[in-house]
Amino acid sequence: MEATVAITKAETLKPKPDPETLQFGKTFTDHMFTMQYSSEKGWFYPEIKPYAPVEIDPAAMVFHYSQSVFEGLKAYKNEDGEVILFRPEENFKRLNRSNKRLSIPPVNEELALDYLRQLLELEKDWIPTAEGTSLYIRPFIIATEPSLQVAPAHRYQFFIIMSPVGSYYPEGIHPVSIMVEDHFTRAARGGTGTAKTGGNYSAGYNAQAKASQEGHAQVLWLDGVEKKYVEEVGSMNVFFKIDGEVVTPQLNDSILQGVTRKSVIELLEHWSVPVTERKITMQEIFDAHREGKLEEAFGSGTAAVISPIGELTWKGETMIVNGRETGDTTRDLYQTLTRIQTGKQDDPFNWVMKI
Amino acid sequence: MEATVAITKAETLKPKPDPETLQFGKTFTDHMFTMQYSSEKGWFYPEIKPYAPVEIDPAAMVFHYSQSVFEGLKAYKNEDGEVILFRPEENFKRLNRSNKRLSIPPVNEELALDYLRQLLELEKDWIPTAEGTSLYIRPFIIATEPSLQVAPAHRYQFFIIMSPVGSYYPEGIHPVSIMVEDHFTRAARGGTGTAKTGGNYSAGYNAQAKASQEGHAQVLWLDGVEKKYVEEVGSMNVFFKIDGEVVTPQLNDSILQGVTRKSVIELLEHWSVPVTERKITMQEIFDAHREGKLEEAFGSGTAAVISPIGELTWKGETMIVNGRETGDTTRDLYQTLTRIQTGKQDDPFNWVMKI
Repeated sequence: MEATVAITKAETLKPKPDPETLQFGKTFTDHMFTMQYSSEKGWFYPEIKPYAPVEIDPAAMVFHYSQSVFEGLKAYKNEDGEVILFRPEENFKRLNRSNKRLSIPPVNEELALDYLRQLLELEKDWIPTAEGTSLYIRPFIIATEPSLQVAPAHRYQFFIIMSPVGSYYPEGIHPVSIMVEDHFTRAARGGTGTAKTGGNYSAGYNAQAKASQEGHAQVLWLDGVEKKYVEEVGSMNVFFKIDGEVVTPQLNDSILQGVTRKSVIELLEHWSVPVTERKITMQEIFDAHREGKLEEAFGSGTAAVISPIGELTWKGETMIVNGRETGDTTRDLYQTLTRIQTGKQDDPFNWVMKI
Repeated sequence: MEATVAITKAETLKPKPDPETLQFGKTFTDHMFTMQYSSEKGWFYPEIKPYAPVEIDPAAMVFHYSQSVFEGLKAYKNEDGEVILFRPEENFKRLNRSNKRLSIPPVNEELALDYLRQLLELEKDWIPTAEGTSLYIRPFIIATEPSLQVAPAHRYQFFIIMSPVGSYYPEGIHPVSIMVEDHFTRAARGGTGTAKTGGNYSAGYNAQAKASQEGHAQVLWLDGVEKKYVEEVGSMNVFFKIDGEVVTPQLNDSILQGVTRKSVIELLEHWSVPVTERKITMQEIFDAHREGKLEEAFGSGTAAVISPIGELTWKGETMIVNGRETGDTTRDLYQTLTRIQTGKQDDPFNWVMKI
């Protein structure tokens, strides 16, 4: 589908950043996509224009009641210089699921993907090609209606902005230290945890600061009801390999349905590695460790792809996972996913979309 | 304290709206206050300038991770035409408590109050004086740093905007129908419920829509852990009068510390009406009703002051409170609070501040 978009090109292009010093989400490309919504017109005026500040009323509802959703995905260039995306249709599906939870009107997923395609067409020179780098894509929707009423807005703006990002692991994939959070909650049962909405993220800053102060890289989140079941790690889904079986928390309304999570499960099934989605208590993980059965642990997400866990601290006790080394399954998943994502390896699942 | 503020006056002033047709939070005054924050400089450049859209980078962290807090209070004119505020120092204290939960740097509460005083000085003609009307004041802080990193921002903007608002009860105070929400959660234990941050509000839209579809005005929120204890009603605190005693849920980390809530408790104590803050189950309220002991129920908040509850629906069962009439205690609280707030009645607590 070729969608109609008004395109205004930037008069001057910014210099591309040095791929060696790229930070995550700090530099943005020359153009962005935006589209408006009103209750009367629906979504209208899709437009690609120079990346620039937007004029927003200080009473815009997003500032007051955080009615917003977002997505994150990455574009790569394969060895033939073609632009490729990893399961982008999953991101636009999830965007609409998030929209539903936040009472934001849905977008047409096919059109949205075509808007992204046209933006990428214009910005393809921004896709870095060094090992581990990519162009991070951030679609998001905010409530722009100026009103202090506590109710869904009648006006929204949809954006796609893009940022060239460096390797999450400049020195290669390396296991990190995680603190299990007993007090703060990321997402409640009946809350917004399964939606990609801003409130879930800033709610975690206090816990992250506490973890950092104690020398840990990230927080492991427990469920909001009993503080007993494993939910996520940082802003990633989490997996454990116990006695040859890989387990991950089953989806509920407080766990994000990660695209990488889904891909990990499908890849493990393809490899005939036993993988189970179920409720997992923190106690069970510690017991498995004590019995010598906890073989590996890792997080999964778009930013890091796979992030091995080297140690876990809970109630003052620390367990070392796999001698703080990246386990074989963790490494295989990381290598296979990144090789499929960058077009370096066969894609038996048809996950990669050429633009 | 007289704070230094750069003041730029609007060249033309907007016409004042008809006090009869005022809606909540739709019309804004001629000027607004803003101030910037950076990690290097702290809070700087306090400025009063014409109310106008602001230029914000599309990567501003508030759009992505909802790092924001807000407050709400009202200015009135007393019969001598003096501008008065109701316990404004409580709002700025709470703003800083919210800031702490959201990892936003604190503001100087005394300076903030003086900025507001100077803004009100300029805008005092916007304060409507008809019965039930007021000038609603909305201080808020948003993360403006352009960055997609999931971490507290290094740059913020503080605003105060103001909106003349009509009576919440054009036909006088009237009891509304409430639906007890069993599925969705407003705020989790360990979550952000006690902070005035946007994510708590948009998280409730789905439940509110469900309640509206079923003919109810608002939702009554239960705790996020057991879905058993009463927490709030809509965006208000909640009170019940049972067998001569007024009870309200005790504060925890998922209940907002309402300024009106606090004032209701202090007023009841002043009147020697028994008032208790404790955990209250929904079952207990229904049992009290069945035994004929539930005398009154109401919500409290800045917008409505006191909002009587006429009926409550829970698990398909509806109970009528006080024959859908406003109870005596509810009415006394509403009249006394609004009369103190508007300077029409003695203020034995020194709650009212003249500007």
